[in-house]
Amino acid sequence: MAGRTARRRVTRVSIDPAAVTERADLLAAEEPLGIRIGGEAVSLTMRTPGDDIDLTAGFLVSEGIVTTAADIASIRICDGQQCGHNHGGHNHGGHNHGGHDHQDDDDEVGNIADVTLRPGLTFQRDLRRSFLTSSACGVCGKAAIEDLHVPGRFDLFDDQVLVTADVLAGLPDALRHAQRVFERTGGLHAAGLFSAAGELLVVREDVGRHNAVDKVVGWALQAGLLPLTGRILLVSGRASFELVQKAVLAGIPVLAAVSAPSSLAAQLAADAGLTLVGFLRGGSMNVYAGVERISALRCVPD
Amino acid sequence: MAGRTARRRVTRVSIDPAAVTERADLLAAEEPLGIRIGGEAVSLTMRTPGDDIDLTAGFLVSEGIVTTAADIASIRICDGQQCGHNHGGHNHGGHNHGGHDHQDDDDEVGNIADVTLRPGLTFQRDLRRSFLTSSACGVCGKAAIEDLHVPGRFDLFDDQVLVTADVLAGLPDALRHAQRVFERTGGLHAAGLFSAAGELLVVREDVGRHNAVDKVVGWALQAGLLPLTGRILLVSGRASFELVQKAVLAGIPVLAAVSAPSSLAAQLAADAGLTLVGFLRGGSMNVYAGVERISALRCVPD
Repeated sequence: MAGRTARRRVTRVSIDPAAVTERADLLAAEEPLGIRIGGEAVSLTMRTPGDDIDLTAGFLVSEGIVTTAADIASIRICDGQQCGHNHGGHNHGGHNHGGHDHQDDDDEVGNIADVTLRPGLTFQRDLRRSFLTSSACGVCGKAAIEDLHVPGRFDLFDDQVLVTADVLAGLPDALRHAQRVFERTGGLHAAGLFSAAGELLVVREDVGRHNAVDKVVGWALQAGLLPLTGRILLVSGRASFELVQKAVLAGIPVLAAVSAPSSLAAQLAADAGLTLVGFLRGGSMNVYAGVERISALRCVPD
Repeated sequence: MAGRTARRRVTRVSIDPAAVTERADLLAAEEPLGIRIGGEAVSLTMRTPGDDIDLTAGFLVSEGIVTTAADIASIRICDGQQCGHNHGGHNHGGHNHGGHDHQDDDDEVGNIADVTLRPGLTFQRDLRRSFLTSSACGVCGKAAIEDLHVPGRFDLFDDQVLVTADVLAGLPDALRHAQRVFERTGGLHAAGLFSAAGELLVVREDVGRHNAVDKVVGWALQAGLLPLTGRILLVSGRASFELVQKAVLAGIPVLAAVSAPSSLAAQLAADAGLTLVGFLRGGSMNVYAGVERISALRCVPD
């Protein structure tokens, strides 16, 4: 398996004072991962190698294909000729795979993830594709949500977790502290899953923000934690429609982003009962939906 | 057509001092755009509405489907029932569509782009899909470039433009100055096309960085400017493999990014003869490939 970083020669140029130096630099690795279900190619994503089984499991959740680890008979990482150890999804959970432990996929040997679903579970066609043949796209804000949104299996409106603004304000520092590759390359998005009390449960990094979230969700699926009731998902960048959709499908009640959300992200969050926080930085934040879960007090009231 | 921004109510929460205020906030709009070629659905992208014809034209370049405006018979923006004005690609060029003029697509009325190619031009199947069925992915750095890379029609090695470090250092401020929506929403990526002397030719914004680049390339295609010999493309975020690929296919010799490139981006740039600049900020930059085009002097030597 390729590493998470790659070393390259770089020329550093400054203009004032004018200076040119050469040195070795670490870059975030980017490689394609093809995902096959029952032998059928269903996805190709450019991702940072590592946590590929998590990524694949999270992809299956985000596409609405699985909801529990038992839905997955196996995920094998292959290089075309050879496959890694057979990971039974329902045998792969447990908290020992979380946190900062990135050693759990040493046996991944390639860039193809070969998925076998449990007997009887059929692969649903991609709902987004059906949108392409729909003619109802004139009213797109609403139609997009109806057509694009994979129906959530978990009802977020039932999740009455309360999170203090203090806890939220402390999450970006915790995420940054836990990022391993970013500090060396500056090139990775991160997604972190936290308890309502602010405890970091798992962090995952990737050149693609969607992949970082899929890796977190896939880890949680295998750990038997779905739906992620009462948890907070923090992403290092912006909050798009797709990230909100992934949070909803994983049953996460609170999604926080360091940067801005899009209009459709805010709209879907409101419709789905997700609390959406943006511009979470410097001790303040904007709440775009689900403000009832945020306590602005320093303590959760009795 | 939906606007580039959407207004939403937001709750602003600060912790020190504790304060909660409500106000209206502008968010970057995000909507799906489906692209059809000859009636066949080929792509669905989440994008910020506006410049949709540019986006569609740029997508056609980035997929290796067209290389000149004359390859496109028409691009019409439809809402399912109704289509906008018929834009003949070869009649749609001209510098009046560039710069900060965003008024050139008032007749876009929906979220489907309906493309008709010129007679005789057949739609090539997506090369990336063929990767999925390939079994050669074990050596992925190289195989990914061979399999994923749509062969460039323009040879960048022939482009001997010289760019000073001073010019490069000034581009991020010029791009930020030209961004219209970002300042209001904080939520958009930008891509700007510059001359080697640092003159801004066009800027485009989008919630997706790939879309911002496609919009720039599509504008250039319609203006008859491909290949973009001697030009510089600046992107507001990171430089991924796909962005390098888009630059190569548009014949752009210099790609600069405010943030980090990925390993595969640097590798493809070196292989394709593209100058790749990263971490372009505060008067300094890292050059990952094609350093021979960068002059660290304040003036281009005689």
